[in-house]
Amino acid sequence: MLAEIRQQPQALERTLKGAAPAVAALRRILEKRRPRLVVLVARGTSDNAALFGRYLIEIATGIPASLAAPSITTLYGAPLDYRDTLVVALSQSGESTDTNAVLERARQRGALTLGITNERASTLAGLAEHVFLVRAGAEKSVAATKTYTGQLLLLYLLASVLGGSLRSGDLERLPDAVNAALRLESDIAALSERYRFMRQTVVVGRGLNYANAFEFSLKLMETCYVVAERFSPADLLHGPIALVEQGFPVFAFAPPGATWGSISEVLGKLGKVGAEIVAITDSGNREVERCATKLIRLPRKLKEALTPIPYIVPAQLFAAYLAVQKGLNPDRPRTLNKITANL
Amino acid sequence: MLAEIRQQPQALERTLKGAAPAVAALRRILEKRRPRLVVLVARGTSDNAALFGRYLIEIATGIPASLAAPSITTLYGAPLDYRDTLVVALSQSGESTDTNAVLERARQRGALTLGITNERASTLAGLAEHVFLVRAGAEKSVAATKTYTGQLLLLYLLASVLGGSLRSGDLERLPDAVNAALRLESDIAALSERYRFMRQTVVVGRGLNYANAFEFSLKLMETCYVVAERFSPADLLHGPIALVEQGFPVFAFAPPGATWGSISEVLGKLGKVGAEIVAITDSGNREVERCATKLIRLPRKLKEALTPIPYIVPAQLFAAYLAVQKGLNPDRPRTLNKITANL
Repeated sequence: MLAEIRQQPQALERTLKGAAPAVAALRRILEKRRPRLVVLVARGTSDNAALFGRYLIEIATGIPASLAAPSITTLYGAPLDYRDTLVVALSQSGESTDTNAVLERARQRGALTLGITNERASTLAGLAEHVFLVRAGAEKSVAATKTYTGQLLLLYLLASVLGGSLRSGDLERLPDAVNAALRLESDIAALSERYRFMRQTVVVGRGLNYANAFEFSLKLMETCYVVAERFSPADLLHGPIALVEQGFPVFAFAPPGATWGSISEVLGKLGKVGAEIVAITDSGNREVERCATKLIRLPRKLKEALTPIPYIVPAQLFAAYLAVQKGLNPDRPRTLNKITANL
Repeated sequence: MLAEIRQQPQALERTLKGAAPAVAALRRILEKRRPRLVVLVARGTSDNAALFGRYLIEIATGIPASLAAPSITTLYGAPLDYRDTLVVALSQSGESTDTNAVLERARQRGALTLGITNERASTLAGLAEHVFLVRAGAEKSVAATKTYTGQLLLLYLLASVLGGSLRSGDLERLPDAVNAALRLESDIAALSERYRFMRQTVVVGRGLNYANAFEFSLKLMETCYVVAERFSPADLLHGPIALVEQGFPVFAFAPPGATWGSISEVLGKLGKVGAEIVAITDSGNREVERCATKLIRLPRKLKEALTPIPYIVPAQLFAAYLAVQKGLNPDRPRTLNKITANL
């Protein structure tokens, strides 16, 4: 897991460079056939990437985006009206049975289909009309890391194809931003010891970093067996905040920008009840110091739109080191296999 | 909370009878203007009702449905393309600031708008073109119960207006099915003692009962301070199952029908690692006995499509009694108010 976390700058560079022909091909199609709706379908870590995509696409393009509920197709067999719809399936292996079933049925029902996968020869790559390849190399750890950031990168490219306003030069700076985040490794290894006996936590994120809250909590659940909740500040305030008491650990993605007011408000409330707050932030946010117990601060100042990829890196490192502190092997969580087949 | 749980049969009857004129008015509009997309927006318990609506609408009508991410409107100000879209806002009080902001913006951008609320004179009822009223009477407990089932009932009516295949006679049987569920109260009060020291749990549900997994876990978090995860069986298998160990408590909504194969598969895996499984089911499911430690069994055999309202009732009762076992007041969770205003 640690080796694969460290491979991310190279994986992102390869993915970005390799994607150009597929991106151009999809752009030609979409110029003639702009979708009215984008539906993303995935499971596990890929589903967290899909959640990011859902926010990014709506924010950058104004096209409504939605996450598919696979059971509606696989168990209820509902004939969804997917005319003028782009259906995007994400899967590291390309062998997730229900994800593939949804994409296949959607294509039969008239949707334009895109697969995002790390495996060129996978079932998914064969089923989808268009394929964006994550070029991360084989991912051996059960806990996915480099394929998650690769999927996020390809979703930025998808948003730009759909008319999003992101400048391509911005994406080229991401591998370097991840390199900078990786330099926090020894600090995070040291920090993780404090949480050796943590058994439950809440992870907070909003907007473009909401998906990172899901992904960090999934990493904590699968590699550290910590019962990790994840909420937006708004959802946390609507009920779950009641469970936070003195000393309860809360991790927060706290970039400067659009979401900071909302994050700041909830951190203030959590601070009042005595929560221990660990904030993942960057040098552009000076206000977060007031409300955090511990800071994980990326050295670079980033546009909020570009924070999701670099911000997940310290979270991945934290989960890997915390697993080691707990005497667990992050590469082989109990009960799990790398590919999960189910409907 | 207990008193309001017990009021549900009457509240459902009043809501069903009172809704006819508003349902007829919306039906007339939708005959001329069938939406291509339904977007539901809500927070807290109402958001769990929205999640039910998202499944029901897609299953019953084939129209794609999606849950809004309010921050995309309130924090990023993205101009979403809501032509040919029905936007449905749900709020018990009708005063949830970000829910109302999303509905208002959507209406300005051409969406048809529907408000579902318990308060006839609320801001939401004024903002929406159409209003379906939950007629549950004042809800005083911070933990919402009777407004949740009222919202579910109105979502069935919405699905029928959109062309869903449910027979109206089916809905008329729901108050009686809830009455039957309420007769489990003393059994559930007795069962709750066993969980006096439970600090974490996972709630499992799928398809039409997926929302109930969210709602039960929210009730456990806000009234009992139990860190309660919620997953579909598919999502649980994609990572989080690693945290389940010998004796870990798992609650499962286990109706017979479309989702049982999937629920049964995951209960089998959970049983193998020694989880304690509490299944909420009815007399139509005889297979569940094999894989559950404890059963909460509704006496009536129900169509799977009609289980969500009666199945949440024992879960509400369980949360209320568990709070009492833990020495807490379920009507006044710490840190919470009845109305949450935030963006």
